Amino acid sequence: MIITVSREFASGGRELGKRLADYLGIPCYDHQIIEAVAKDTDMTENFVAGLSEKFMHSFYPATIGRNFGASYYAVNQSVQVAVAEHEFIKKVAKSGDCVIVGRAADEVLRDEVLFSFFVCADDDSKIARCKQRGQDAEKLSDKEILRKCKDIDKDRCNYRSLYSAKKWGEASSYDLCINTSGKEIKELVPAIAEYIKVWYGTKQNG
Amino acid sequence: MIITVSREFASGGRELGKRLADYLGIPCYDHQIIEAVAKDTDMTENFVAGLSEKFMHSFYPATIGRNFGASYYAVNQSVQVAVAEHEFIKKVAKSGDCVIVGRAADEVLRDEVLFSFFVCADDDSKIARCKQRGQDAEKLSDKEILRKCKDIDKDRCNYRSLYSAKKWGEASSYDLCINTSGKEIKELVPAIAEYIKVWYGTKQNG
Repeated sequence: MIITVSREFASGGRELGKRLADYLGIPCYDHQIIEAVAKDTDMTENFVAGLSEKFMHSFYPATIGRNFGASYYAVNQSVQVAVAEHEFIKKVAKSGDCVIVGRAADEVLRDEVLFSFFVCADDDSKIARCKQRGQDAEKLSDKEILRKCKDIDKDRCNYRSLYSAKKWGEASSYDLCINTSGKEIKELVPAIAEYIKVWYGTKQNG
Repeated sequence: MIITVSREFASGGRELGKRLADYLGIPCYDHQIIEAVAKDTDMTENFVAGLSEKFMHSFYPATIGRNFGASYYAVNQSVQVAVAEHEFIKKVAKSGDCVIVGRAADEVLRDEVLFSFFVCADDDSKIARCKQRGQDAEKLSDKEILRKCKDIDKDRCNYRSLYSAKKWGEASSYDLCINTSGKEIKELVPAIAEYIKVWYGTKQNG
């Protein structure tokens, strides 16, 4: 049972992945992917996190600027992080059942029998989730929070497009898309787990 | 419990709606919408079906042509069908729990607490489903079948855009999107029903 989670920023996708993994008694790989890559390279965790799922974002502004040498280096590091993350994802998928959050894992593992889902939410829910998380959100207006969400989603969308013809966020690109607007994630988890169990059952029979 | 089903053509959405309604012991409105509108107007069921969910399709080619009088009449009939369908949908939604297939019912009933889902499938599954259904599909090549599917979906997408700012087929426009590719619809129904029950439970508490 390999479950991949794509998600809009502040949709609760990370929480959903973690809670689902706990419910099913299997590991969830999210920040662990960054930790593993940082360990295998000479980069810090913060540096890896900054490049993770942000390929195009680093690429375009960098090569338009004058300092091509430095920008080429930045692109190179983004590629290095993506490759290392994908290698790690392939390794953990081979080692047993798991949930993997982000990094276009469904496409990295496209030859495996896996269940892919996408998590989204409406603007009000995203603003509420960002404020609940705290961090920088307290200093931002609702409009600024949504702008931040959209910028991060644009990165994720562009990142995915490098590895997949299946578009980020489109219903037909995933096995299931879940809208968490106004819902408690923990309340949805048992029903999602049930759905996936049924899905795997019919997949094995079919 | 009001459940609305939007669907790609040949994705199994109609079957899913019917089976889900049967499983939950509530009525499913699909072709019944056409029957009711035909009864209330002087149109035949076939004529209503031909105009149903096809507003823009009738509109654009008609007004580009020379015979504006006749085309205006066709547009007028499309509007008449859409209005009558939406009135019928509002009426059945008031009368109790139900499943409603198509006609942008989630947007027609946007002031109600409802559960909306979208059903999609990949090309291979659609071709297989069309061939299984028989009808005209036997005479068509796979390419022609897919062209037909896409044309009907374009109609549905345009039709929805008249009534909703939420885009047809986008994950964030629905509570759940289900990809039926390679799956037996009947096997997925219990898990979907469970999901909806949980969803309604948390909605009432939240």
